Amino acid sequence: MPDTDNDNDSNVIAPAPLARGTLRIIPIGGLGEIGRNMTSYEIDGKILIVDCGVLFPEEHQPGVDLILPDFGFLRDRLDDIVGVVLTHGHEDHIGSVPYLLKLRADIPLIGSQLTLALVEAKLKEHRIKPYSLTVREGNHEQIGPFRLEFVAVNHSIPDALAVAIKTSAGTVLATGDFKMDQLPLDGRLTDLREFARLGEEGVDLFMVDSTNADVPGFTPLERSIGPVLDEIMARAPRRVIVASFSSHVHRVQQVLDAAWENHRRVALLGRSMVRNMTIAADLGYLKVPEGVLVDYKKAGDIPDDEIVYMSTGSQGEPMAVLSRMANRDHQIEVGEGDTVILASSLIPGNENAVYRVIDGLTKLGANVVHKANAKVHVSGHAAAGELLYCYNILKPKNVLPIHGEYRHLFANAKLARDTGIPERNTFIGENGSVYDLRDGVVTVAGQLDLGFVYVDGSTVGEITDADLKDRRILGEEGFISVIVVVDATTGRVISGPEIHARGFAEDDSVFEDVKPKIIAALADAAHNGVRDPRALSQIVRRTLGGWVNRRLRRRPMLVPLVIEA
Amino acid sequence: MPDTDNDNDSNVIAPAPLARGTLRIIPIGGLGEIGRNMTSYEIDGKILIVDCGVLFPEEHQPGVDLILPDFGFLRDRLDDIVGVVLTHGHEDHIGSVPYLLKLRADIPLIGSQLTLALVEAKLKEHRIKPYSLTVREGNHEQIGPFRLEFVAVNHSIPDALAVAIKTSAGTVLATGDFKMDQLPLDGRLTDLREFARLGEEGVDLFMVDSTNADVPGFTPLERSIGPVLDEIMARAPRRVIVASFSSHVHRVQQVLDAAWENHRRVALLGRSMVRNMTIAADLGYLKVPEGVLVDYKKAGDIPDDEIVYMSTGSQGEPMAVLSRMANRDHQIEVGEGDTVILASSLIPGNENAVYRVIDGLTKLGANVVHKANAKVHVSGHAAAGELLYCYNILKPKNVLPIHGEYRHLFANAKLARDTGIPERNTFIGENGSVYDLRDGVVTVAGQLDLGFVYVDGSTVGEITDADLKDRRILGEEGFISVIVVVDATTGRVISGPEIHARGFAEDDSVFEDVKPKIIAALADAAHNGVRDPRALSQIVRRTLGGWVNRRLRRRPMLVPLVIEA
Repeated sequence: MPDTDNDNDSNVIAPAPLARGTLRIIPIGGLGEIGRNMTSYEIDGKILIVDCGVLFPEEHQPGVDLILPDFGFLRDRLDDIVGVVLTHGHEDHIGSVPYLLKLRADIPLIGSQLTLALVEAKLKEHRIKPYSLTVREGNHEQIGPFRLEFVAVNHSIPDALAVAIKTSAGTVLATGDFKMDQLPLDGRLTDLREFARLGEEGVDLFMVDSTNADVPGFTPLERSIGPVLDEIMARAPRRVIVASFSSHVHRVQQVLDAAWENHRRVALLGRSMVRNMTIAADLGYLKVPEGVLVDYKKAGDIPDDEIVYMSTGSQGEPMAVLSRMANRDHQIEVGEGDTVILASSLIPGNENAVYRVIDGLTKLGANVVHKANAKVHVSGHAAAGELLYCYNILKPKNVLPIHGEYRHLFANAKLARDTGIPERNTFIGENGSVYDLRDGVVTVAGQLDLGFVYVDGSTVGEITDADLKDRRILGEEGFISVIVVVDATTGRVISGPEIHARGFAEDDSVFEDVKPKIIAALADAAHNGVRDPRALSQIVRRTLGGWVNRRLRRRPMLVPLVIEA
Repeated sequence: MPDTDNDNDSNVIAPAPLARGTLRIIPIGGLGEIGRNMTSYEIDGKILIVDCGVLFPEEHQPGVDLILPDFGFLRDRLDDIVGVVLTHGHEDHIGSVPYLLKLRADIPLIGSQLTLALVEAKLKEHRIKPYSLTVREGNHEQIGPFRLEFVAVNHSIPDALAVAIKTSAGTVLATGDFKMDQLPLDGRLTDLREFARLGEEGVDLFMVDSTNADVPGFTPLERSIGPVLDEIMARAPRRVIVASFSSHVHRVQQVLDAAWENHRRVALLGRSMVRNMTIAADLGYLKVPEGVLVDYKKAGDIPDDEIVYMSTGSQGEPMAVLSRMANRDHQIEVGEGDTVILASSLIPGNENAVYRVIDGLTKLGANVVHKANAKVHVSGHAAAGELLYCYNILKPKNVLPIHGEYRHLFANAKLARDTGIPERNTFIGENGSVYDLRDGVVTVAGQLDLGFVYVDGSTVGEITDADLKDRRILGEEGFISVIVVVDATTGRVISGPEIHARGFAEDDSVFEDVKPKIIAALADAAHNGVRDPRALSQIVRRTLGGWVNRRLRRRPMLVPLVIEA
């Protein structure tokens, strides 16, 4: 099982066994963090999962590729899972599906056409062919004891759905990620008439996206970006390179439209960009003006003022197209007169990487347009003003803000209270918080100890927090190894100590002073009859460690080894 | 000498020997980065330094405490240095002074009263007592061949100065950091009348702060923050904790005033906050309303709604007061009803740390007010609109933007051109770029190879870029050590291989498979007469490395050691 560690100090409280007719709700990921969204719903022995995403690591989790929700506690209940609803196709909602399906491949996936197409493309890379059920807004499905009603919501990817989960214990509405753009590009609004109908019928628990709950006002219209792109392309003397998220179909749509308007053709760059836009175009979510797309291999033949490159790498990811261009490590050589547009958010934590890319491109002579100097991005999440509309239209009995850091969850709960929902009916939870719903009443039933499950290369859950602590020490201070060979019978030092340091601030010659001390300490130990190599290693560690701390005022990792020969 | 490495791939061009009567200007730090500002000016064999700051490391420089300007090339010229002008007391302008004075303690320091008081407090910790010359705006000083004229500028610390450097070769005006608040708290404006006079006399080269050159418009007034602080304190039900920079005297002044207005007393928290504000109050820069300050040890006796704590830690620094409060590792236990104000910028790269602190405090029940949700911070640097005023008032012949990442330097040069300064007279430089000025003409005379000088613990310049690369590998992937003891004469393996991994994603037991391969490879080598332990170590490295890459698809650091016994 994954070896995990709890990042909060809340008390773990085992929930009581679940009574028949009570709905138990456990957020597994996405509370206190932006990412790895996952919630389980259980009633009468059957479990429904909503979303199964990944979290991207921060700098204190070095070398980690992905972080999964800690769903190990479901391992004994796999056969009770009746389905996984995926609200939309972003990584933080679908990225862990392969890891769940590795435990049981035939768990049915339920989602919209685009969402399932994206998750199937991902699963193909893991050689998994899922069982899936395609749904759309307005569909009602009975899955075991759960009656699911799907509602259209608007987000930064098409075909997103909210899901109402109706059970004998009551109704939950989970929004997934959403905003309320009132003039969306594809005309597909967040369906407030359906919200009103569900509210009329009674929503016992509203689980609602908190990402922008602390942003006052309203998210600007996605279509406000189009004219800006249009103007930039009209004035660009040479090539235009636009970077954005590879799943942002509407943003790419606006780039295609602006390019077409300006008699430019578009070449898609980056594996995920090409894959996702091919899927989106095939399914009709991306409307490609006839002839606008050109294979990037042929783009070089097109005059500079007639081409747009649409690429990945807007977050400064080192291996993505844009970073490689900035480092002159890409076949497209950015130069004087080129225009680069970062049509994307700047996800916190990526600032240094993104600004390094911007500086690199600027230094090569490009005019770099980004969020800070032009209106080339709007968020995909509802701001405070929009959330107030939701609360007032739905009038839910209880509210559990999801999808956010604590400050977002708190801000969202406050908005709920501002619309008149009593404080006792707004819940600020953590991953692993256990809520029971029955007769419109939500109670806190317990707290599971859920942690981080790290994916590192090909291993899942092997890397522990102790390993990450080792990595942090190694990464900050390096290590010193000491090897001594002793005679197995006499304990006499035959060879060494050999002392080597790596990533350490001093030359190895500095250790000449401590070698006699180590030899003396070992001689003492031998004299006292100590023969166990481990005990001798500890003596070496203490001698060296004390000296390094005193003399060099450092605390690198110490790796002593005493070998018998 | 510090072992350094160039971070750019520009060609190094040795400048011609400096002719008499020509002024040579070398930016040593602060170009292409925000930090470690330092410039040298040389004429007729004498050198003047302006500023001598530090740069704080980014995440790809793990374990580094500070980064110094690479002023090692001045080591043979120390006796020619006639003085160091310090424009103001921020770390990125004074932080490297101790390291320069360690090379020659009696280099005179020239600066305003507050600047020198702050640098002297810092030098005291290094047990250096400097020679210093206090100057103020309006003062003219002849220092060797340099006639210095000091001009008042407004910044986020009081008593900042620009300096005009007049020589037989021409006049340079260096702004230091500045903005143009037209209603500054202390009434001390950036002196545009002096700028006009200098412009009238002729400024041959204008070296100008670029930090906010890409920010359109004007920096808001510092005094716009006062009413916001006032309102927050008036409404705060319990304690108020304000965090800001420990040198931001005007911000602290506004906190004191708002507290006084709201019948609250103020306790200063944090060593640097107490030290700097004591200096500022002693010198009259901070006006402390009689009785408003209270020792923090006695603050606990004051009712919660009558106290304000003024602390450090606004950048999420782990050891500062605010982080410790967020981690419940401080005697002041933040709780429900407390208000925390981060009255500070969010320096890029610190986002994750700052938001972790905000989340921690929110979770403890505090209402956290920060830049993103209230107007509690304004920048200390001139935005684009202000810089245009400067260019139009000064009409300099040549412009060298300083103090900024490349995108800032480019944006600033563009502003200069927008006001009519020809492109050939605006220079985008790098650290180590060599400019010669004579008869109002600036020429690019060469490019020195300047790098990063890392301070790590007690060592300066010992840590190399190779060490940092080792740390990054260790921090991402960990290491595997292999020790084998062989018989010195036969080459036969006596003991081992002992294989241990740290920070690595697998258990040590995984290595059982590779041990026979290593033994076999060594037996082969012994058979072929290889006896040299280094050669044998390389064989172990290749055998293990190949296996780890193939089998585990990883590239940790490998540390093989073959010992003869």
